[in-house]
Amino acid sequence: MSNETLPSLEFFLGLVEAAGRITLPRFRTRLAADAKVKAGVKFDPVTDADREAEIAIREIISSTYPHHSILGEEFGTTGAGPIQWVIDPIDGTKPYLCGIPVWGTLIGITVAGRAVRGIMSQPYTGEFFWGDQSEAFCESARGRSKLRTSSVQALPDAICHTTSPEPFARRSDRGFAKLSSAVKFTRYGGECYAFAMLAAGQIDLCVEPSMQPYDIVPLIPIIESAGGVVTRFDGCRAEQGGRILASANRSLHEAALEMLNDGR
Amino acid sequence: MSNETLPSLEFFLGLVEAAGRITLPRFRTRLAADAKVKAGVKFDPVTDADREAEIAIREIISSTYPHHSILGEEFGTTGAGPIQWVIDPIDGTKPYLCGIPVWGTLIGITVAGRAVRGIMSQPYTGEFFWGDQSEAFCESARGRSKLRTSSVQALPDAICHTTSPEPFARRSDRGFAKLSSAVKFTRYGGECYAFAMLAAGQIDLCVEPSMQPYDIVPLIPIIESAGGVVTRFDGCRAEQGGRILASANRSLHEAALEMLNDGR
Repeated sequence: MSNETLPSLEFFLGLVEAAGRITLPRFRTRLAADAKVKAGVKFDPVTDADREAEIAIREIISSTYPHHSILGEEFGTTGAGPIQWVIDPIDGTKPYLCGIPVWGTLIGITVAGRAVRGIMSQPYTGEFFWGDQSEAFCESARGRSKLRTSSVQALPDAICHTTSPEPFARRSDRGFAKLSSAVKFTRYGGECYAFAMLAAGQIDLCVEPSMQPYDIVPLIPIIESAGGVVTRFDGCRAEQGGRILASANRSLHEAALEMLNDGR
Repeated sequence: MSNETLPSLEFFLGLVEAAGRITLPRFRTRLAADAKVKAGVKFDPVTDADREAEIAIREIISSTYPHHSILGEEFGTTGAGPIQWVIDPIDGTKPYLCGIPVWGTLIGITVAGRAVRGIMSQPYTGEFFWGDQSEAFCESARGRSKLRTSSVQALPDAICHTTSPEPFARRSDRGFAKLSSAVKFTRYGGECYAFAMLAAGQIDLCVEPSMQPYDIVPLIPIIESAGGVVTRFDGCRAEQGGRILASANRSLHEAALEMLNDGR
């Protein structure tokens, strides 16, 4: 199947808009949710929004592309075949709970296991980030802007991002500590939004020690189409998840991988 | 001087709008900034925006309230007297550089050393958070919503936030490690936005090991007017900065302080 016959950006936008109608009204409703729980009504805004958004996305896909397979965070894999949709209805449930708009709805497509199209949508800021192997851009009410990664080549000039230090600390991961001490600075807590900002040239390295396929597949085409590189720490492609490094360019990627794999 | 004669919200809004006209156009311009630097033009978007925004804010204040003192991050203290403006033109320079919209412009007022009014403005999301000892609210294009902290009383139910683990790790801070293992979860990387979300009831604890007065003074009236508590780890008022804990309520605050001060 060639790229031309893959679902269009417009189709993806229909999916993330359907998800946003479910996720956004529940964002920043913790007090209301707690009141319901105290009143004896079972209500978990994240879990409920996650599930309902995935159901909404799956329904639209299945009615238009019944022959496609779907892998989603909440309901696992359905169907089979070379074309697979990969869905994380709310990537970043912690920032979603905290009211911080760096979560996103992630939807991607793999063909024969290779990520070829992906979108990250942040409905509170009203932005989406798109990559389809020919271009990558961000669009919001402010307009459309091309995504291009930075040309930072040396670790001491590089801005590094990771979501939490805790998984590295638990594993006594000396590689991450080495990388962190070699870069300009490490910032914490970006979830999928940090990968979008890597594609936008604002961040140079994103490191995550434990990703699921649905966490990373939709982001791969955005990163790669913007000029970036994303692999596992062992250098293999990232579609299966695991320990993931995304970099602004190949030479920075190699320098960072060397650090991450040192002392392991 | 009574509250009635203190500058109005409208005056504060004029200040943050002036700052936003300087900070927002430079947000997410790292590639353009790098190109200028490579072309030999000295250009640092954060430092330049920080300084210019503080100058703009100071000019408006000085022309209207020439008898007020001003403490700003970039230009220190000017003037003297019981009423002091406290300004951080860009709180969160790292997220500003990273393109992540959790930075803010902070402006507060102290009267005889006590924080009485404060605003946090996030121009990319188009929100501001306000507190003036009688009310606290958030306003954006979506409307105005009252800020109210959560009623979470027990550490195992509490969501904790801190900007970076690095200062705690450098000091081998066992107190933070204890608190972090006692709460529901700790999320990293919220800067001033996390304090706003504490006021909004989304986060229960914000811990920062090293704050300057201009980092915290403007946030104090927002937190306190929403029902929260904010002090130094030693229990003293937070206006002078230092090790700061903000909590959704008094009993949670006391439980968290006990952890933070344990083993020190």
